Amino acid sequence: MAIDREKFPPLYRTVANNDDGLESHSYVPGGLDVLTSHPLEDAPGANPEQFIGLALSTCLNATLEAIEKKRALTHTSQVHTIVEMARDRRGFQFYLTAEVKIPGVDLETATAMVDLAERRCPVAKLLSGSDNVQVKLVQEFTPITTIDAG
Amino acid sequence: MAIDREKFPPLYRTVANNDDGLESHSYVPGGLDVLTSHPLEDAPGANPEQFIGLALSTCLNATLEAIEKKRALTHTSQVHTIVEMARDRRGFQFYLTAEVKIPGVDLETATAMVDLAERRCPVAKLLSGSDNVQVKLVQEFTPITTIDAG
Repeated sequence: MAIDREKFPPLYRTVANNDDGLESHSYVPGGLDVLTSHPLEDAPGANPEQFIGLALSTCLNATLEAIEKKRALTHTSQVHTIVEMARDRRGFQFYLTAEVKIPGVDLETATAMVDLAERRCPVAKLLSGSDNVQVKLVQEFTPITTIDAG
Repeated sequence: MAIDREKFPPLYRTVANNDDGLESHSYVPGGLDVLTSHPLEDAPGANPEQFIGLALSTCLNATLEAIEKKRALTHTSQVHTIVEMARDRRGFQFYLTAEVKIPGVDLETATAMVDLAERRCPVAKLLSGSDNVQVKLVQEFTPITTIDAG
């Protein structure tokens, strides 16, 4: 459904910029200002893979936190999003796997909470049309192994 | 199309985490570690709106930079992504408007470059199923006015 700005007017507005490409910095005027670099270069700096992982983890966990609060549950949810970069038919693509842990509730309750959060979280909504994004409940987080693309 | 990890194996892997909800921090282990806060609270910190804006601006501009390099063009592209938060039928939603400026080329060339970049950029691909995301070529960036949601 197209945006309905009358029915749903913006409550908050921000802007995030990149002017000088990948080997430079990305910034929010007057706010976060982050050095960036190519993920396959051995150089300090964040990258688009990390920014979108931070967006999904923060948004999903904020939504889970709101659900916990509404049900007077102690906050125990955690979200770790694994982001992988691979070639594609054209250019590159990302694979996102958001792993959710909610140790404070039973499996059935946790499963329902993750399902609700995925339908409510604005970042998950923006990504819902992509086959490359997965949100799953885990008992333990997957240990991350870096890839030597040498 | 579902992920085909055999045909397109990951070249790079990272993880981005949030453990303690919106009023805490989000981080990449051993890398970027960012204070977070609710966008409508008058508190320092970044938020999911800014993270996804940084992801789209950085990724689109890196893709434009690669197109410029391939055509031996001087790098002049810039991307500023406006992110707005609004209510939705369920929970909240984001509106993203990525504004692209490429002063170093004529309008026709710039239009073709933006179209190509949008089809190549991994973050734009992840968002391509959403009606809430727009990428547009501009002569000048829109001045950002904050919203007093008081």
